[in-house]
Amino acid sequence: MYDIAIIGTGPAGLEAAITAKVRNKDVIVFGSKESSIKVSKAHTILNYLGLPEVAGADMSRAFLDHAASMGVEITEEQITAIYAMGDNFALQGAENMYEAKTVILATGVVAAKPYPNEEKLLGSGVSYCATCDAALYKGKTAVIIGSSPKEEEEADFMTEYAAKVYYIPLYKDEVHTNDKVEVLHEKPLEILGDMKVEKLKTDQREIETDGVFVLREAVAPGQLVPGLETDGPHVKVNLDMSTSIPGCFAAGDIAGLPYQYIKAAGQGNVAALSAVNYITQLEHKQ
Amino acid sequence: MYDIAIIGTGPAGLEAAITAKVRNKDVIVFGSKESSIKVSKAHTILNYLGLPEVAGADMSRAFLDHAASMGVEITEEQITAIYAMGDNFALQGAENMYEAKTVILATGVVAAKPYPNEEKLLGSGVSYCATCDAALYKGKTAVIIGSSPKEEEEADFMTEYAAKVYYIPLYKDEVHTNDKVEVLHEKPLEILGDMKVEKLKTDQREIETDGVFVLREAVAPGQLVPGLETDGPHVKVNLDMSTSIPGCFAAGDIAGLPYQYIKAAGQGNVAALSAVNYITQLEHKQ
Repeated sequence: MYDIAIIGTGPAGLEAAITAKVRNKDVIVFGSKESSIKVSKAHTILNYLGLPEVAGADMSRAFLDHAASMGVEITEEQITAIYAMGDNFALQGAENMYEAKTVILATGVVAAKPYPNEEKLLGSGVSYCATCDAALYKGKTAVIIGSSPKEEEEADFMTEYAAKVYYIPLYKDEVHTNDKVEVLHEKPLEILGDMKVEKLKTDQREIETDGVFVLREAVAPGQLVPGLETDGPHVKVNLDMSTSIPGCFAAGDIAGLPYQYIKAAGQGNVAALSAVNYITQLEHKQ
Repeated sequence: MYDIAIIGTGPAGLEAAITAKVRNKDVIVFGSKESSIKVSKAHTILNYLGLPEVAGADMSRAFLDHAASMGVEITEEQITAIYAMGDNFALQGAENMYEAKTVILATGVVAAKPYPNEEKLLGSGVSYCATCDAALYKGKTAVIIGSSPKEEEEADFMTEYAAKVYYIPLYKDEVHTNDKVEVLHEKPLEILGDMKVEKLKTDQREIETDGVFVLREAVAPGQLVPGLETDGPHVKVNLDMSTSIPGCFAAGDIAGLPYQYIKAAGQGNVAALSAVNYITQLEHKQ
């Protein structure tokens, strides 16, 4: 049972992690060991106070080094669902289940609008986690839509099960997948199917498939935490970064505009200290 | 007529200033050219993401250099009153009057009257933040003066480091601290020490100690802006750092707990962008 589970390794998640460490809390941090691609790919940031005119890659490195120096470890397992269990939370990972007294959501925002039928067919052929569901595709066809190069690994993994794997990169970097993956440079438009996924329609054709894996930077918050109050793509938060679910906090882009690094870090700090207070109150109740 | 008048040169004020500069706004910043004494006299800050284990003086210097590099100038004239005039604000300075379309309050919170030697020994054993400095008291003795029951948690936290922790409540409620905290019902009178804290003198005796943590309930600041809604010592703010007066924003300690540097900077950023939006709306109205 962790004190605080933090989802996300951008500025909000890393700041929450170091603040929780300062307060001697037992923390687990889920996300990419490379921090946020939004940070590392940024040109130059002018207004992160204390780091003048800093390149995104340098800022990202500074954040990760800072966190590492304080003993923050990053677990790269994807969290696909978080359930409020009363006085604690169960986190469903791709491989393991985790338990924590509090949760801080710092996943960033899902930039893209869902594809038509994506939400309707979620769980009926639409999935957000290839690692979780690959075994269901033995001998079948799967299309994987990847928003960043780290999803290529998911496509490779899928070839261990599926008979046919298509990979559609939504980015411009060169793609490095194994020989069994067919890479398609097409634009997904719509998922087709009534009770379950039948086809993916692109700007060039319709692909017959059993499954469509939409691997975005982040899962929509309402999907991640069932019952959480949201406001468009954002989680509804109060000034102390609490959400509609006691013990669940949010920080950074997921908590609303503006999308700014120093704002995200500031909110991560507040979320961590609010989580610490919440844990103290839990202990007094017992 | 300035676009944005910023009152305060701590992390909130300076971050607001550089963000306003990025957005090409005409800014005037009132406060000390030395930034905030709370920053510069802080021992070591562990959780300002990107600046690991930084001394207060170094952090203060980094903030001021950053602001200067972006053309932020600091006006040291004290602002004694701010009047909302409809679509703009009149700022009463000690010598001049100023006008601005928007105001950002980032003054910090005003503490009560300091104990004798408190200011002299600030950073040399006197501290305002147990969370920040506890790690420096490993194996040492600390006295914590708490003005409200919420500071008891700070005393508890201190026992994770210090060999001996005294807690002096300045209130009458029953005290709930852990077994390691020795609660003293005495009245602090004076902090003793030349180069660093040596003793705390109370109405009953002199206590030998390495550190004195003065954790005060901050004093109400609202007189600065007549009509501004406050909440105890803080200005009432919304998530976008707006206050009860249109065009007036607040950020940092004055906008509420927790008193943390990165939180202050994050709020300064949000306040500046909200002020920019407000100015845009004003222009559309005209």
